[in-house]
Amino acid sequence: MAIKFDPDRYFSPEPRQRKAARGLYEGVKDLPLICPHGHVDPKIFADPTYQFTSPTELLVIPDHYVFRMLYSQRVKLDDLGIKPLTDRQKVLSTQDLRKAWQVFADKFHLFRVTPTGIWLTEELVNGFGISEKLSSTNAQLIYDQIAEKLSTNEMSPRQLFERFNIEVLCSTDKATDKLEAHKQILESDWKGQIRPTFRPDLLFGIDKPAWKKEFQELEAVTNRSINSYQAFLIALEERRAFFKQMGAKATDNGVLTPLTLELHENEIESLFQKALRGQASDKDASRFTAHMLVEMARMSVEDGLVMQLHVGSYRNHNAELFKTYGPDMGADIPIAAEFTVNLKPLLDRFGSDPRLTLILFTLDESAYSRELAPLAGHYPAVKLGSPWWFNDSLNGMRRYFDRVMETAGIYNTVGFNDDTRAFPSIPARHELWRRAACDWVAGLLVRNFIDDEDAQVMVYELAYGLAKKTYKFP
Amino acid sequence: MAIKFDPDRYFSPEPRQRKAARGLYEGVKDLPLICPHGHVDPKIFADPTYQFTSPTELLVIPDHYVFRMLYSQRVKLDDLGIKPLTDRQKVLSTQDLRKAWQVFADKFHLFRVTPTGIWLTEELVNGFGISEKLSSTNAQLIYDQIAEKLSTNEMSPRQLFERFNIEVLCSTDKATDKLEAHKQILESDWKGQIRPTFRPDLLFGIDKPAWKKEFQELEAVTNRSINSYQAFLIALEERRAFFKQMGAKATDNGVLTPLTLELHENEIESLFQKALRGQASDKDASRFTAHMLVEMARMSVEDGLVMQLHVGSYRNHNAELFKTYGPDMGADIPIAAEFTVNLKPLLDRFGSDPRLTLILFTLDESAYSRELAPLAGHYPAVKLGSPWWFNDSLNGMRRYFDRVMETAGIYNTVGFNDDTRAFPSIPARHELWRRAACDWVAGLLVRNFIDDEDAQVMVYELAYGLAKKTYKFP
Amino acid sequence: MAIKFDPDRYFSPEPRQRKAARGLYEGVKDLPLICPHGHVDPKIFADPTYQFTSPTELLVIPDHYVFRMLYSQRVKLDDLGIKPLTDRQKVLSTQDLRKAWQVFADKFHLFRVTPTGIWLTEELVNGFGISEKLSSTNAQLIYDQIAEKLSTNEMSPRQLFERFNIEVLCSTDKATDKLEAHKQILESDWKGQIRPTFRPDLLFGIDKPAWKKEFQELEAVTNRSINSYQAFLIALEERRAFFKQMGAKATDNGVLTPLTLELHENEIESLFQKALRGQASDKDASRFTAHMLVEMARMSVEDGLVMQLHVGSYRNHNAELFKTYGPDMGADIPIAAEFTVNLKPLLDRFGSDPRLTLILFTLDESAYSRELAPLAGHYPAVKLGSPWWFNDSLNGMRRYFDRVMETAGIYNTVGFNDDTRAFPSIPARHELWRRAACDWVAGLLVRNFIDDEDAQVMVYELAYGLAKKTYKFP
Repeated sequence: MAIKFDPDRYFSPEPRQRKAARGLYEGVKDLPLICPHGHVDPKIFADPTYQFTSPTELLVIPDHYVFRMLYSQRVKLDDLGIKPLTDRQKVLSTQDLRKAWQVFADKFHLFRVTPTGIWLTEELVNGFGISEKLSSTNAQLIYDQIAEKLSTNEMSPRQLFERFNIEVLCSTDKATDKLEAHKQILESDWKGQIRPTFRPDLLFGIDKPAWKKEFQELEAVTNRSINSYQAFLIALEERRAFFKQMGAKATDNGVLTPLTLELHENEIESLFQKALRGQASDKDASRFTAHMLVEMARMSVEDGLVMQLHVGSYRNHNAELFKTYGPDMGADIPIAAEFTVNLKPLLDRFGSDPRLTLILFTLDESAYSRELAPLAGHYPAVKLGSPWWFNDSLNGMRRYFDRVMETAGIYNTVGFNDDTRAFPSIPARHELWRRAACDWVAGLLVRNFIDDEDAQVMVYELAYGLAKKTYKFP
Repeated sequence: MAIKFDPDRYFSPEPRQRKAARGLYEGVKDLPLICPHGHVDPKIFADPTYQFTSPTELLVIPDHYVFRMLYSQRVKLDDLGIKPLTDRQKVLSTQDLRKAWQVFADKFHLFRVTPTGIWLTEELVNGFGISEKLSSTNAQLIYDQIAEKLSTNEMSPRQLFERFNIEVLCSTDKATDKLEAHKQILESDWKGQIRPTFRPDLLFGIDKPAWKKEFQELEAVTNRSINSYQAFLIALEERRAFFKQMGAKATDNGVLTPLTLELHENEIESLFQKALRGQASDKDASRFTAHMLVEMARMSVEDGLVMQLHVGSYRNHNAELFKTYGPDMGADIPIAAEFTVNLKPLLDRFGSDPRLTLILFTLDESAYSRELAPLAGHYPAVKLGSPWWFNDSLNGMRRYFDRVMETAGIYNTVGFNDDTRAFPSIPARHELWRRAACDWVAGLLVRNFIDDEDAQVMVYELAYGLAKKTYKFP
Repeated sequence: MAIKFDPDRYFSPEPRQRKAARGLYEGVKDLPLICPHGHVDPKIFADPTYQFTSPTELLVIPDHYVFRMLYSQRVKLDDLGIKPLTDRQKVLSTQDLRKAWQVFADKFHLFRVTPTGIWLTEELVNGFGISEKLSSTNAQLIYDQIAEKLSTNEMSPRQLFERFNIEVLCSTDKATDKLEAHKQILESDWKGQIRPTFRPDLLFGIDKPAWKKEFQELEAVTNRSINSYQAFLIALEERRAFFKQMGAKATDNGVLTPLTLELHENEIESLFQKALRGQASDKDASRFTAHMLVEMARMSVEDGLVMQLHVGSYRNHNAELFKTYGPDMGADIPIAAEFTVNLKPLLDRFGSDPRLTLILFTLDESAYSRELAPLAGHYPAVKLGSPWWFNDSLNGMRRYFDRVMETAGIYNTVGFNDDTRAFPSIPARHELWRRAACDWVAGLLVRNFIDDEDAQVMVYELAYGLAKKTYKFP
């Protein structure tokens, strides 16, 4: 069946609002894309000859949004070409890849009304020129069409970066990363802006098995022996300086709760020593992280890097799956988050400091109108990030506009970020945001909240201006 | 004043969406009703000569949705014909019943915009052919009209079951129930599917005065002396087997929180012995129940019964009313519920087991997008139940579609259940759901999210297919 | 740029709904305003010659909604004419005031889509006849226009009270207030109803530095030496009687959580003695307040004053700002609130008492459908207050209608209150509520939930009737 692809898709059916939305969208749809936070691997841009491989490896295997839904309907991960930890080196045959694609196509109806379904459809149509809905029947034919396209030069990451009209794209990198891909890009004659982001989570999780190895890498990369908390701080600061020199504009932390604390120097030293001895408990790690968030704010005040906080994802919730397949298997489940009390220690120190920009992301929408919009609408340092993860759907965006904007105003929000590891989905994600934003602003216009002049400024800011300004991109 | 009963009622006013909704509704309105969870007394079907008595006894006295609203506006329960525990045997005179009906009619405006108001109006119009809005003036006349209708044979439960086009209706029964009404129905020549549901809550509430009696009934009905936790498990399994043999497809638990735990065998035995001695505290009961939920999941894996969990109702919140009138007096008030952490022990064991179907119902809508849709959109075992209790209103359904579907997809939800003890309200409840579902899908259609083909499949699944398949009805 | 001021502003763009909303609005727009809760200073009505001073002092300096938004965008409070505690006596020069106004005008775009922006625009247009959007360019011209208007007699508070068509306006007053302004008004020949409200928060905060002073004022104003908890209760009752005699219809408490407790007489006496000794901790204060709320309910049962509870504002969250500028600096941030368990002790005693009216206000919208509407829809004493603070925006009101009404019904809600200290904003606030209510009811009408007769009754009640009846205004 042919895909119906209406130019007014996702807009209100009400004719006046739809018309206004379309007009506003015309004005922003060709603006460059600002991608201040995401997980695309910078290596694909470092190598000018990089090519995507098969449709399955491009669209199914790396996308935990896709396979978590298939998994929920009792599809086995192995049948999708996803390999257990013990089997990661195994090369998938073309037959394996085609079989996995067939399973995906057989279950494509599961993605109806999901944002994943929207992005995939947009990618198939706009990226690969597919005109039929993916189905059991046409699965292999469409596989061929995509595979052929992937083999051409026009689908190289650098070509796509330009075709997608991306102005800047930030990766997310652990504190000890040597940023070699970023270096290669900087030293190349390719002009694409690919910037790193400093994310030291592994170094804060002092109760985790992974901590030791990352800590040793920190010692190695800074060429220091780190015996004290003070030395640890200095090493972190050095890494931040290196990231900044490599183009970073921001840091990021992913935390279960936004607890912040200023611990006494004795306690923080003692926690650090426990970490060195491999004796830190999860409670220790929680206090250590809470303290480190205040240090991160302090360092941001000093070096000007924007501070991002992603709150409330219970990672690797499915114990068996984690054991067999490792992290990022679509089993990260949100929990409720409390911001007003938890952030107070950090805000008491730096909330009113004009040098700090602290962007908060949440998976708990009940905090939008209750805590986050009021915080962003008061503290000079606080901004509210775009709807995150499960919430970057059309209704998720509508709820965000609905619950945030009247209290925070648009200028205490930061536009959109796609937060994706699926590079080809980037234009579809921004398009959905821009359409949602235009429809929301159009709704305000036809309800006579705002006038045309306001509307045009607002959609420009939401689509482009706010992200660029907040993250201090040149 | 005449009731205006628009064929497009509850649909969006936007002409294109309304037209699409109407078209979709035409396609599902005559599908049979699947009623997988509710509280209609099976006895009314066991006795082929059963007749409903007065309008007051049909529509007011048994419906705690109705009288809680009247009570909130300072109507005395006694004036509605509701008898205190000490007076349950008292027979209401026709005069009492007519007076209570008059009070109800005098206050009928209280039900404006409530789902109760919608259901009552639909029942009066479609069930009894009433054409005037109920009011103080016409109260007694309408009483007469309903009473006359009730005295005819066409209003017998079996006749209505067929007229309502019910394909299957499940009751909810305590673990020790002998299911005699179900047996009579099975042995009769009447072909209506009335299935029991296994609900062992009374046996898990080891701190409650009612526990002892129910436990003794368990010993009696299984003809066992139950001295150990292991013996208790065996007795439960035996009861489940009996329920299954009598047609049950599911179990149910009503719990204040969805806490699950796997206790050490010593602890669970010790809790059980405390229960036997009448010494269990509410904390003991909480841990016991948490452990029993994991056992219930284990048994479901073994015997194939679907597991339902109704979470978050603080029962009998009004102490005085509970003392005087007993339970189910419209004083059950929701509390917040946490699923992500609480369900982990159960999900770690059985969340990915394809033999388990665990349906979650909540009264805490803030968990829809934050916890429940992500859980249902990942775990093979988890499905999300329809909007429950206070939330099975038109806006409650809209919020459910809005917040759940983009993340869970419709196939991790289970369609509708009416969860009512008011048998005559069943068609109205399903009609409201079907209209709400069609309007939601129509909204997606006119926003070009989905095409006509998708839309038709979706409304069929929401109205009929998903419930039938999830509960494994033949 | 000229302000576009559509007569159908804030209504749905859907033509049928818009038309219905307009029709309903015509029927209620000229009803008098009932203002049962707010913070306008009664002194401005006591003095018949009172005049507002400059535009800056009228619209910017006293309005923490306005300056918290400017502050969030790194405007310094001093630049807005807001003086630190150490500098409160300083008189602002006309130049200071004009400079502050210019800053405000330069940043007027920050208020786009916020309710503050709507109120300000309505005030500028309807109150001062301004026809241009405030901007950097026209700031001083508009300053002149407003200043000129303020100098005329028609802008006196009493004149405005009448022009605004206010039927009754309640102030909020601490327990020890001598209500001298109220007395002057009562003794004058001016007929405006200005009623006090009894708010004893300062006397319940036994851990706060301010407690001692307020307690001494209580001793002074009652001319008693208060040595025991019993004596304290008697003093409170005496003050309530005085407030009632001065026209009060209600009390109010602002609390962080709605915890209620009935403490043993020994414990409450001991807490009170600790307070006298200046030794009460914040935990003590929390238990003391929880107990006092039950006492407040008991007193309301006895003297008939309506009891209001404003829950969940973390006051003075910004420590530095509080230290330098004092309270009410736009830094009150909401927290989550739990009602079902916390209110049970109070409701067990008085929830079903027909003599109590307990109106609950929340900043936590997640409690609307989960806890508050079910409580209001059951307990005779409980009513749900209008959307409060950050939530009295257009979308805040829509969420309130959406989530509350189907469960509570409109008759367990209490209409609107403006809760403002900005007297000139009162008509704009009521207008927004009335428009929002009419649009909501129109939506029900065109979806055929209700008929015209219902619709007209409902908008009357929401705009006027419910507030008047609930607060027992004559």
